Amino acid sequence: MTSTGTSSVEPTTALLTDHYELTMLQAALADGTAHRRSVFELFARRLPDGRRYGVVAGVNRLLDALERFRFDAATVEFLRERGVVDQATCDWLAGYRFSGDISGYADGEIFFPGSPVLVVESSFAEAVLLETVFLSILNHDSAVASAASRMTWWAGGRPCIEMGSRRTHEEAAVASALAAYIAGFATTSNLEAARRFGIPSAGTAAHSFTLLHDTERDAFVSQVDALGKGTTLLVDTYDLTEAVRTAIEVTGTELGAVRLDSGDLPSLAGQVREQLDALGATKTRIIVTSDLDEYQIAALAPASVDGYGVGTSLVTGSGYPTCGFVYKLVAREDGDGTMVPVAKKSPDKISIGGRKYALRRRNRLGVAEAEVIGVGEAPVDDGDDRVLLRSLVESGKIVGRTTPEESQAHHLKVRDELPRSASQLSRGEPAIPTDYTGDLNTRNPYAPRSTM
Amino acid sequence: MTSTGTSSVEPTTALLTDHYELTMLQAALADGTAHRRSVFELFARRLPDGRRYGVVAGVNRLLDALERFRFDAATVEFLRERGVVDQATCDWLAGYRFSGDISGYADGEIFFPGSPVLVVESSFAEAVLLETVFLSILNHDSAVASAASRMTWWAGGRPCIEMGSRRTHEEAAVASALAAYIAGFATTSNLEAARRFGIPSAGTAAHSFTLLHDTERDAFVSQVDALGKGTTLLVDTYDLTEAVRTAIEVTGTELGAVRLDSGDLPSLAGQVREQLDALGATKTRIIVTSDLDEYQIAALAPASVDGYGVGTSLVTGSGYPTCGFVYKLVAREDGDGTMVPVAKKSPDKISIGGRKYALRRRNRLGVAEAEVIGVGEAPVDDGDDRVLLRSLVESGKIVGRTTPEESQAHHLKVRDELPRSASQLSRGEPAIPTDYTGDLNTRNPYAPRSTM
Repeated sequence: MTSTGTSSVEPTTALLTDHYELTMLQAALADGTAHRRSVFELFARRLPDGRRYGVVAGVNRLLDALERFRFDAATVEFLRERGVVDQATCDWLAGYRFSGDISGYADGEIFFPGSPVLVVESSFAEAVLLETVFLSILNHDSAVASAASRMTWWAGGRPCIEMGSRRTHEEAAVASALAAYIAGFATTSNLEAARRFGIPSAGTAAHSFTLLHDTERDAFVSQVDALGKGTTLLVDTYDLTEAVRTAIEVTGTELGAVRLDSGDLPSLAGQVREQLDALGATKTRIIVTSDLDEYQIAALAPASVDGYGVGTSLVTGSGYPTCGFVYKLVAREDGDGTMVPVAKKSPDKISIGGRKYALRRRNRLGVAEAEVIGVGEAPVDDGDDRVLLRSLVESGKIVGRTTPEESQAHHLKVRDELPRSASQLSRGEPAIPTDYTGDLNTRNPYAPRSTM
Repeated sequence: MTSTGTSSVEPTTALLTDHYELTMLQAALADGTAHRRSVFELFARRLPDGRRYGVVAGVNRLLDALERFRFDAATVEFLRERGVVDQATCDWLAGYRFSGDISGYADGEIFFPGSPVLVVESSFAEAVLLETVFLSILNHDSAVASAASRMTWWAGGRPCIEMGSRRTHEEAAVASALAAYIAGFATTSNLEAARRFGIPSAGTAAHSFTLLHDTERDAFVSQVDALGKGTTLLVDTYDLTEAVRTAIEVTGTELGAVRLDSGDLPSLAGQVREQLDALGATKTRIIVTSDLDEYQIAALAPASVDGYGVGTSLVTGSGYPTCGFVYKLVAREDGDGTMVPVAKKSPDKISIGGRKYALRRRNRLGVAEAEVIGVGEAPVDDGDDRVLLRSLVESGKIVGRTTPEESQAHHLKVRDELPRSASQLSRGEPAIPTDYTGDLNTRNPYAPRSTM
């Protein structure tokens, strides 16, 4: 339920990594800096153009990946044979276990520009190796969850069904199903996601099933015999009106739902609703599934629709298939053992050295007002400011796992804190400002290490 | 080299599948139509908006996935426990082996609207189950290869380095590295892709390595000690001019390359080239890596640049992260054993029943003129018309594997056949027209099964 890997198989994640993480390690092991205590932070400099908020997903998958991040004998042998790193580095890798601390935002939490979504503290060597796989997981899963949340918000009480597996990489599909569930989707079509994460799956039939049979009636009779009258019949293979009539003839008025997968959905849904009602099938629901995105879901709000199936636009982040998260060294030990903040000098990018804390500031009514980010120890939670960083890993031990159900519940709760403007689909500014506070050197954020 | 799976671990791919494939199977097994001989085709109705051609990738991954498509005991038990399908279906699945034929375009082949990229012939039951995982693989990998090919075309003789792992799902990253290689990339940063597919990987150091050290000089000295003077030094952490001077002081004039990862690349590259030349480092190359895409690569053609590192835009298909491939039943056995073409009736989508053949028609100079698609047996190859469908699977046996090197060579060869206009980055029509020929019922493509 909580652990990943396909069935009992848990391959190492250690090579889901950029080549340069290992060459940096080799050089740093040789000169001794590899063991300097370091703080890396994972954050987005900005939201995708015009988005009002982002949604974190992938934290539990990341913890699973960390648990499987091991340089086993075959992996070390590959690195040695290929000459990726030298023998001393191979020896060090063979004993690799992450022994540091990680804190981060929870799956389902909202994020904004600058939010320190993940804070990794360990030696440089231990922490730098995790960069690629941590970014891969959070950039992908959070992009999907961020799009999914806009869809479920506008779907209101109507269920959203995730069915995008065929439009993305086969393993990204499994992760997308989980990310969508965290952001409020009701079910997925993906069976591996159902098995691996325990989330609900659903599905009935495609056009090929109707085309396989000599008549549409044959197909409907066969499906109802196999799956019961509560099933969903796909009614747009040939003639819609004829198909709805046939569907009700076959099932009486007990048919669970009909599905529309093409055409002008608002008008067709209205027409089918009238026909179903006239035939007495007033409880038969109408599910629509034709290349929907959050904009079309919003446009369908007044239509006679009972549920939405969403594919392509969900798994591709509805125009933004990656989050732009980066993983940056923000502080490290000096030659004399003192921790010093560090940041790349860049005229066009804000980089603030030092370990951050983060709070969601809320007003008296519980509505979020600002993402408060500071350097150093966080002020105490006074009830208005919600602490956002949770402990995920302590001295190498994973302590912060949550279930998909908990993550979904958390998302719906914290999304409800946002000002109403956060649901706007028009392009605009983040729903709340990011408020840098405390000793941030904001006038000159590069001061700590701006020169050599 | 050719087989996938992480190291020796090869989990089943059977559940990388939509729930409805299995419920359709259950109904079709019960009514007997599951065993009707069927032809499914995988194709794209159109190219992404304005693209001139598409590139097939994922065919070898698909064959690996087919080999691992098995309903082992744990998988069947999951389906039974969850009530996805009934006992009779579970029994049938336990013995599942694909026994049919598959032909398709090769990895690296070019495709156009309507190209029958994959043709699967078997019983309905055997073929329908493969829909989701086949689409996932080809939609993802071909989207990446299609973007990658535009990049390598415009890069000309300068090498392209794939480094997008952190911006996509961790397993999609591995597949993306292979797709990019097929489309002409020289190397990848992804170590798992290097291990799994045997393609070359490369990498040196990130900004964090410079920030880890007390001075930039310390970092450069350490890197050169570990990786040699032929390494690539990252020179934009603090002050570019200062860094280039330090780099040459540390290495003499033998430095392999410098890397620029920010700023206005054309002008900075020119400035760095002048500085390197003035310092005598005339052979030191300049690699640029700052959110490049095919448009920026084209714009950098006149600049003093020796190689391109490409990340986000590559792994996200440069605006089109999925290909829009569909998998459609185009013919199936009738009640009396005759094969009949079938197609969904749809006013806005062209669907042509019947098994297709495909040829690339070339003129006397060897330049492609049309994608010729017909129903039935293909005419003989007369030297001008290149046959596009290769045998991949025969009676369940995989016969059509190719190596990454063969796929890359094939891509570069067939891309070279295209008219020069195919390289245009401006939006326009496909480089060659799709020419439907033969007995296609083009005037009324739905005639075969337009009514019940």
